[in-house]
Amino acid sequence: MPRTPEANQRIREAQRAKILDSARRVFARKGMEATIADIAADAQISMGLAYRYFADKEAIFAALVQQTLSDGPSMTQKLLQVPGTPGQRLATLISHIVAARGRPETLEVYQLLNHALYAGAMPDDMRERLGKHYQMLLETMKQLIIEGQASGEVAPGDPDQLVAIMGAFLDGLTRWAVQDPEQFNTYVPDAEIILRLFKPCAEEKSSSERLSS
Amino acid sequence: MPRTPEANQRIREAQRAKILDSARRVFARKGMEATIADIAADAQISMGLAYRYFADKEAIFAALVQQTLSDGPSMTQKLLQVPGTPGQRLATLISHIVAARGRPETLEVYQLLNHALYAGAMPDDMRERLGKHYQMLLETMKQLIIEGQASGEVAPGDPDQLVAIMGAFLDGLTRWAVQDPEQFNTYVPDAEIILRLFKPCAEEKSSSERLSS
Repeated sequence: MPRTPEANQRIREAQRAKILDSARRVFARKGMEATIADIAADAQISMGLAYRYFADKEAIFAALVQQTLSDGPSMTQKLLQVPGTPGQRLATLISHIVAARGRPETLEVYQLLNHALYAGAMPDDMRERLGKHYQMLLETMKQLIIEGQASGEVAPGDPDQLVAIMGAFLDGLTRWAVQDPEQFNTYVPDAEIILRLFKPCAEEKSSSERLSS
Repeated sequence: MPRTPEANQRIREAQRAKILDSARRVFARKGMEATIADIAADAQISMGLAYRYFADKEAIFAALVQQTLSDGPSMTQKLLQVPGTPGQRLATLISHIVAARGRPETLEVYQLLNHALYAGAMPDDMRERLGKHYQMLLETMKQLIIEGQASGEVAPGDPDQLVAIMGAFLDGLTRWAVQDPEQFNTYVPDAEIILRLFKPCAEEKSSSERLSS
């Protein structure tokens, strides 16, 4: 019995996902030197089959970045729909960002983006879209900080500066996780400690609040 | 009247310092592609004169790293001799580290180290000594955190984790300052905000301390 068009479509999608999965690992490990042959070997398929899905390794790389650009923002949106006060949502967002750096797939994505940026192999439009995605994340944090400061949940301080500090911190965290995943997973930062940056101390509350606490 | 040997020595030292000053700028801007010709041009001297001080550009590069390795630890030692409680000394150390990233010369050093590390152009012994210097800095922070926690000046938390977080944060801060010095100097982080990571809240002090404050 011949396969139905739906079954064929499912097989094609699974094959494509498998190639991208291998490509993520291979690009993360070898950088932009990775070849279609390396990717096909990792996926345990022939090079001919790989070429039926992607014209060249640049197309595979573009598809990986595309995937990151689709997954990232939708994850951020999902996190922001979690119910709670601004302070709780900020805590959820930051905890997720920190925890994500402990996962091998996320690390591989950061590694390959890092290779591509350094090698100048990132097309301008992708670089721009990645930049916008990152800006959106920082804007969201800023909004939650401003709302949290208004409700007294978040410590005072210039929101732009707090966001810039958090941005630098997350960048450093990513590099650490990429360079030494084992050490990172041993000392994987407790999001509670990082959130101290935003936590108002009792002395910053009004004295009546302090006495009643 | 011929110059005295002392005067000659002073002139040689000033010339060498001038070459290194230019080299720091040029390596920071051009990376390992920089040539002796670039450095001589920046220093406004002939290439022949540059070669009288350094055998090749690798020797200039090595001298720059050597300078960093001598200046860094002695600065750390000086900061640690500042009188004060462990918490105050930790605050001084971190404020200095943050402020240093706003200075062009420090940024140039970070840029050139970054180029060299990425290009694999850092000799093993230098890489090892830089690593040791960095470890010593983190060890010092850890010691101050432990002492500060004992005296109640520093918030509780695993000292290794606190140090790892601070290390990631400083790394991110360095990258930010290197990539966008202008933006960094606009939002140059207030060390007070960063020190919140270590600041115990009033509710964590004993109730008698809180009432008397």
